[in-house]
Amino acid sequence: MNLDAGWVTGFVDGEGCFHVGINPHEDMKVGYQVLPEFTVVQHKRDAQVLHGLKAYFGCGVVRTNHGDRWAYRVRSLDHLLERIVPFFLKHTLKTKKHLDFMKFRDVLLLMERGEHLRPDGIEKIRRIAAAMNRGQPR
Amino acid sequence: MNLDAGWVTGFVDGEGCFHVGINPHEDMKVGYQVLPEFTVVQHKRDAQVLHGLKAYFGCGVVRTNHGDRWAYRVRSLDHLLERIVPFFLKHTLKTKKHLDFMKFRDVLLLMERGEHLRPDGIEKIRRIAAAMNRGQPR
Repeated sequence: MNLDAGWVTGFVDGEGCFHVGINPHEDMKVGYQVLPEFTVVQHKRDAQVLHGLKAYFGCGVVRTNHGDRWAYRVRSLDHLLERIVPFFLKHTLKTKKHLDFMKFRDVLLLMERGEHLRPDGIEKIRRIAAAMNRGQPR
Repeated sequence: MNLDAGWVTGFVDGEGCFHVGINPHEDMKVGYQVLPEFTVVQHKRDAQVLHGLKAYFGCGVVRTNHGDRWAYRVRSLDHLLERIVPFFLKHTLKTKKHLDFMKFRDVLLLMERGEHLRPDGIEKIRRIAAAMNRGQPR
């Protein structure tokens, strides 16, 4: 499947999600684990498009999600910072999802500096994450 | 809003819908009215993208849909045949929505020949429409 940057941008504007999970985690000193992820979910009949995205970005995994839904998912901080972020900085999303992406990037940059391992960093990330994905189902 | 063909194709792959309504209609000799439509629905916060699509295709309307959803909608047979169909013939959708689009086009071509005004034509259209939009919410 031969994808181009314009199509990828339009499809992610429609179907993509930038999400930051903050989950209680006993093994972390700070008590929480921060889990950023970029996902695109499709009905299984369009799983080939998800594999196309995986090949296009050269990272991430394609897995079943719920029922007959499949997901393309990138969770690696390195892959998010090196492949996903530069792409969407160059190819600006045209919906309000762009604002979510910019907040998502802010969280990744905080994590790159290790701020998610300190209580005040967690608080910063929590505030940014709370302002994301408003008015849009996941 | 400066849209390009790649973005439009990707966005419609995610968010677009090709639908054929067949509604009982007393004023029609054949007893039914065939209503093909191409729609893209968004949360109202992204209404500007719908206006961008309207400007891009040079046809259709942007209206409120349900609650805080807005829709870009093309219903004119001429506009569908002259603007929407040629675009998606040139810029092939990458999801299975392409198959819906091809069936949608079949219905439009039957209507262009006036077959929706004859009982056997309605039956043909009904069979095509029944095979569309399977496994995908509207």
